[in-house]
Amino acid sequence: MSMERTEIGDLGEFGLIEHLTRNIEIQNVSTILGVGDDAAVIDHYGKQTIVTTDLLIEGVHFDLAYTPLKHLGYKSVVVNLSDVYAMNATPTQITVSVGISNRFSLEAIDEFYEGVYAACNKYGVDLVGGDTASSQKGFIISVTAIGEVAPDMFVKRSTAKNGDLLCVSGNLGSAYVGLLFLEREKKIFMESPGVQPDLEGESFVIGKLLKPEARKDIVEFFEEKEITPTAMLDVSDGLSSEILHLCKDSSLGCVLYEEKIPIAEEMKKAAYKFEIDPTACALSGGEDYELLFTIAQADHDKLVLNEQISVIGYMTDADQGANILTKGGGKHKITAQGWNHMG
Amino acid sequence: MSMERTEIGDLGEFGLIEHLTRNIEIQNVSTILGVGDDAAVIDHYGKQTIVTTDLLIEGVHFDLAYTPLKHLGYKSVVVNLSDVYAMNATPTQITVSVGISNRFSLEAIDEFYEGVYAACNKYGVDLVGGDTASSQKGFIISVTAIGEVAPDMFVKRSTAKNGDLLCVSGNLGSAYVGLLFLEREKKIFMESPGVQPDLEGESFVIGKLLKPEARKDIVEFFEEKEITPTAMLDVSDGLSSEILHLCKDSSLGCVLYEEKIPIAEEMKKAAYKFEIDPTACALSGGEDYELLFTIAQADHDKLVLNEQISVIGYMTDADQGANILTKGGGKHKITAQGWNHMG
Repeated sequence: MSMERTEIGDLGEFGLIEHLTRNIEIQNVSTILGVGDDAAVIDHYGKQTIVTTDLLIEGVHFDLAYTPLKHLGYKSVVVNLSDVYAMNATPTQITVSVGISNRFSLEAIDEFYEGVYAACNKYGVDLVGGDTASSQKGFIISVTAIGEVAPDMFVKRSTAKNGDLLCVSGNLGSAYVGLLFLEREKKIFMESPGVQPDLEGESFVIGKLLKPEARKDIVEFFEEKEITPTAMLDVSDGLSSEILHLCKDSSLGCVLYEEKIPIAEEMKKAAYKFEIDPTACALSGGEDYELLFTIAQADHDKLVLNEQISVIGYMTDADQGANILTKGGGKHKITAQGWNHMG
Repeated sequence: MSMERTEIGDLGEFGLIEHLTRNIEIQNVSTILGVGDDAAVIDHYGKQTIVTTDLLIEGVHFDLAYTPLKHLGYKSVVVNLSDVYAMNATPTQITVSVGISNRFSLEAIDEFYEGVYAACNKYGVDLVGGDTASSQKGFIISVTAIGEVAPDMFVKRSTAKNGDLLCVSGNLGSAYVGLLFLEREKKIFMESPGVQPDLEGESFVIGKLLKPEARKDIVEFFEEKEITPTAMLDVSDGLSSEILHLCKDSSLGCVLYEEKIPIAEEMKKAAYKFEIDPTACALSGGEDYELLFTIAQADHDKLVLNEQISVIGYMTDADQGANILTKGGGKHKITAQGWNHMG
């Protein structure tokens, strides 16, 4: 935290926007006109444009008690880019709008934007617009991501085929366990403010929660290996919930092998500290931002050399339903227990 | 207001989105994929893409005490489309995200979306995405509009030339006077809840506030008459403030004739009821969503037949500053007194 405090009201809205956007360097030739006019102008000649948007509200989607503003800025961008990658597309521009109550100083907003710009640099996207508003309560973030894809090369979630392999990138459940740690430490802190947080050794799961990455590498791997997934979506609400979306939208069933679900060693150890089942965390925990996708069996050999991709099952007829085969040999219906912010 | 009340929590987030988007009919061939996947896909081959976004927060940008939700939905879309037209472009798609506290029923949200869809139909744009979130307090709206423009035919606010004519569409100041009426009636209602509002005869100014329109007709007129404005922006913060933006960004000064500022008879009468100067309302009142633009003098004759366009002044060297010539023959510096939500 900076020691200075500049009141945002002193700058006015236009002053604030100028301040926040003063160092922008355009990274994409498609960005014809960025911040500073009524709208941005983008040139995607010969490509199709992708659009996705998210609204994040303090107290609902994030808790500033344990979320550094810089991480929040980074994550707010990444979760939108993840949706663009989940279309098999490349993000190129974003807009970021913030609603800010007067409890936030300019230095605090700068920290948030440091995270926004760090994500822009990492993923090669341009911030081309946005809005700033005062909010009566709490911090509100709205991000829209724009991307591009070669004509008709985008991948929907409704086009998986019977017999396709079900695959997922990375590993699952860590962000959820990270959240459990942070919620526990917050509770202890609220009860005994003098106690230092005990997060020793949990940087892996906490990092997965606070600073997730979008799977740019997977989409680049698809292009390099000339793989077109038959269907794809990102895992924001937990594996179970996303698999059920995939099955419903593609009018299929599936078989998921519990033992194939990728779980990191660090997450397993952390889950045991809470005496919870790592598989349950992977199935029901949210905010992993991995890619869940299906490929034709003929493409299986192309995946072998990428240890970031796990084949976790296959698609079946709809009337067989969505099932998980457990390590013990049992067969169960998959049920949605993902995070549901509206619930 | 409907008599039924359905709790939004009963539907869950996915159920709510399905409900709100169940009747969408795609209007643009460029809309390849709309609501229902990770992102939307848009095809603007051979054109440039326009993006603009706004964040609207209850208690800051609107007051539900006198804003019907249907009007709010309509206006939330229109203010974004206005930014697209201000680039000399045509809006084609929007995304709409809402944050809703549990004081809102499903029927209330439906009213809001009725307004959103009414604006989509009127302006021929497709709703292609969005997000729904619960909010701890108040109603939050984030709209992003996408548009298209022929290559390099977009119009910035920074490209006016010395000697260009300064023009504005429609008439100015009515929305501000409408707001004064509604604020007065709200105050009376708060003090004496039994008293019926006295808005007799003020439907013009109140309509301008609650249900503004974007100037699609002006951009179509430009195309028909082969006029390319040298600079353009929309009037959201009051004429003074927007003229100063235009001058600053174009590095010019200007002369504005007070007597040329277009003011509706209805607005003039309404302003007199509050004993305020109609010109002051036009200069400083916000939310008119008219287009302010400059054209080369050579194009003047092309404007003559459009009574929706007023020539209100001309651009000068920067060192002459931005001046208003009053009806009484005085000359004053233009100062920004536009609405500033951050102030």
